[in-house]
Amino acid sequence: MQNLQQHITYFENLIGKENTKADSMHKMAYSYDATREEREPDIVLFPRDESDISAILKYCNDNLIPIVPRGAGSGFTGGSIVASGGVILALEKHMNKILELDSKNLIVRVQPGVINKDLQNFVESKGLFYPPDPASENQSTLGGNVSENAGGMRAAKYGITKDYVMAIRAVLPNGDIIRAGKKTIKDVAGYNVAGILIASEGTLAVISEITLKLLSKPRLAKSAMGIFDTIENAMNAVYKTMASGVTPVAMEFLDNLSIRAVESKFHKGLPTDAGAILITQVDGNLDDEISYQMGVIESKFKENGCIEFRVAKDSKEGEDLWFARKNVSQSISIYGKKKLNEDITVPRAKLPDLLRAIDGVSKKYGFKIPCFGHTGDGNVHTNVMVEDLKDIEKGHEAITEIFKIAVDLEGTLSGEHGIGLAKAPFMNLAFSEAEMNLFRAIKHAFDPNNILNPGKMGL
Amino acid sequence: MQNLQQHITYFENLIGKENTKADSMHKMAYSYDATREEREPDIVLFPRDESDISAILKYCNDNLIPIVPRGAGSGFTGGSIVASGGVILALEKHMNKILELDSKNLIVRVQPGVINKDLQNFVESKGLFYPPDPASENQSTLGGNVSENAGGMRAAKYGITKDYVMAIRAVLPNGDIIRAGKKTIKDVAGYNVAGILIASEGTLAVISEITLKLLSKPRLAKSAMGIFDTIENAMNAVYKTMASGVTPVAMEFLDNLSIRAVESKFHKGLPTDAGAILITQVDGNLDDEISYQMGVIESKFKENGCIEFRVAKDSKEGEDLWFARKNVSQSISIYGKKKLNEDITVPRAKLPDLLRAIDGVSKKYGFKIPCFGHTGDGNVHTNVMVEDLKDIEKGHEAITEIFKIAVDLEGTLSGEHGIGLAKAPFMNLAFSEAEMNLFRAIKHAFDPNNILNPGKMGL
Repeated sequence: MQNLQQHITYFENLIGKENTKADSMHKMAYSYDATREEREPDIVLFPRDESDISAILKYCNDNLIPIVPRGAGSGFTGGSIVASGGVILALEKHMNKILELDSKNLIVRVQPGVINKDLQNFVESKGLFYPPDPASENQSTLGGNVSENAGGMRAAKYGITKDYVMAIRAVLPNGDIIRAGKKTIKDVAGYNVAGILIASEGTLAVISEITLKLLSKPRLAKSAMGIFDTIENAMNAVYKTMASGVTPVAMEFLDNLSIRAVESKFHKGLPTDAGAILITQVDGNLDDEISYQMGVIESKFKENGCIEFRVAKDSKEGEDLWFARKNVSQSISIYGKKKLNEDITVPRAKLPDLLRAIDGVSKKYGFKIPCFGHTGDGNVHTNVMVEDLKDIEKGHEAITEIFKIAVDLEGTLSGEHGIGLAKAPFMNLAFSEAEMNLFRAIKHAFDPNNILNPGKMGL
Repeated sequence: MQNLQQHITYFENLIGKENTKADSMHKMAYSYDATREEREPDIVLFPRDESDISAILKYCNDNLIPIVPRGAGSGFTGGSIVASGGVILALEKHMNKILELDSKNLIVRVQPGVINKDLQNFVESKGLFYPPDPASENQSTLGGNVSENAGGMRAAKYGITKDYVMAIRAVLPNGDIIRAGKKTIKDVAGYNVAGILIASEGTLAVISEITLKLLSKPRLAKSAMGIFDTIENAMNAVYKTMASGVTPVAMEFLDNLSIRAVESKFHKGLPTDAGAILITQVDGNLDDEISYQMGVIESKFKENGCIEFRVAKDSKEGEDLWFARKNVSQSISIYGKKKLNEDITVPRAKLPDLLRAIDGVSKKYGFKIPCFGHTGDGNVHTNVMVEDLKDIEKGHEAITEIFKIAVDLEGTLSGEHGIGLAKAPFMNLAFSEAEMNLFRAIKHAFDPNNILNPGKMGL
């Protein structure tokens, strides 16, 4: 970066030496995310408030300095690391406060650096409920969740981050502070700017405050596991259950490779011969509601070849049923040194076709491809396991083929992880030149100098 | 319009004489909407398909001809009439087909000219459910519903149009056809273009196809009416019920003036001394679920001064309870020749403050201001009734004051009607210069020549 020392001095005067770091330790600490890609920034800044963000952005805009907002750095696609030098705007240090709980309107107002699980715990202590629960909930921040439109296990019934965002305060690259959305359920005045900031991966504006919708916490919940001899039967059971009029909180799946991986590591008595298991949960305020829902799910599962249906008698047994799902991601490492994991998503009724096609890719390339994930919303975590690192290119070919399959099945490259750096080369599989041009025009409308998280999303 | 005959000839060659109209009858028929404002277009075009729309837009863009997409023309803000000459693109004639019902994925794909109620009836005949039910449901088209983000009675539980839009096909002003969104529940690849097209009032692109999410139709429903001596009690009951953990399908209200208007016209035995009534409905699949929900609502109502709670014994009695709400809009005309109706929305807990402040405006200006509407989501239809047309300017002053009150209570100018021409002068009450500049930049990104519905939304 040109004039580095001059920029550092400016930032030190603006937000203090203690909030302006350019030493090798900080540069390394902020150089990676969950992709394991490492790209060092030149400067790491810790803004104390929205006006710091505004002043920093204005300076970067005037001096054409790339700047990347960052929460916990737990993303899977490189969204919160620099593409090639510049400033990391680290929001987790100072901007991590829950500002207001408005229980009369079931609304909470937070800063972007609040950790997802901290918010969940806080509102649950008041009898309220914030449903989005990405697997990264213990690390990831709400600013990151909004920027990637994070999902989670409960999305099948309760939707994803976008369904809870009521309003956003954000800072534009020129330093202007805007509000988008309202504390009202309905608002049709002006363009839906909050809607386009969600999932924009920090490329349009820096989110400085988020107003989220809450629900009342349902009093009861019950979990169950269905064991299937084939993956095809399990996938049929998923979409037929979801179309039955009962909406489970979660409808998660593990294929045979995933089941065996967890069992080999934890010895929990999982059915290692099963083609697939489905783990599901229902909730509500009445016992009858719970048993009605569980009854419909059981009958849909059994109509579709479920060979055993285990209902948890209490919350302890429920946790046991969920153990496999919660530990599968770390367990599948037994299949290879390098995991190429993607989160393709298809319409639910296409799940049988998708899993069959992935099996074909596995056979063609000779990789094990354990699959698990949020089948209730058609989202499959697909893991191409590369044992020998010299085969990594072939692994990428397999991934490319899987992306093409997902798009052909009217699906998407990413259900919840975003595009970032990692999937940028695949954007042309999913979008036409007209669509990419429109994305670029939108980017230009917000960020004419291309300083905000440049080099991401294939723009 | 310059070169009018040349343009007409071009369009006649493109889509046929039968679909190109510039006679006075057609120009008059397409000159108004529900605002009663009349502005004549120069040409009315009836495109037969998406490629007609593309060719028409490209020609208008090349020749800088203003063009306004239009469904049923039932809007309340002038969104579907020309601001000052140009082309009306009338989508209700040919582009009114339901293209695909995908019951496996609970999805329906429609053209923009399909009437809302026709879709509701069609999917209900298959046991499915499309919840958004604007009061205009018998006339308004789904393209218009998406463009204004229409709400309705059921929004308290089921949300509004945006909550059902999964994907949109649209034509940009340059003729490019884009797809935005997917048939998947989750999709985070690329910017959320569908999200910004919703409620954009036909100013960014012309919607050529919409993919909507459906639900299963709940098997049971029950309605009830609560009678309150004061409006304050009723408003307290609304927000405390909505925060109780039970979410009614609808939570509608009529104030005393509204009750008396319906009673004077229809003689239904309504409680004309009541300060307000609330009409509510719950639904579900189980009898216990219905009685549990109704029990919670009854107790919340009674804790907040409800003097009588009438539960409908059957669907016939339910319809009787809803009669007042469904006929209030036409009934209040007894209070004045001209109705200045707005659809301000506030956070629910601010409803008592809002209604008290509106009462103050009524006393200050000497107008009757009957209020009713969707209190379950904080949306109040506020009607300033002007008896003597020479007082119309004073009426507009009263409306301006009401807008300011709504904005001060963290509310919005419009919950569901949009901005269009009618509310354009008030945009600066709600948005800063930075926010308006961003809206203009977004408009420019989609429509650099400003041909699509120009002169709307205060841009």
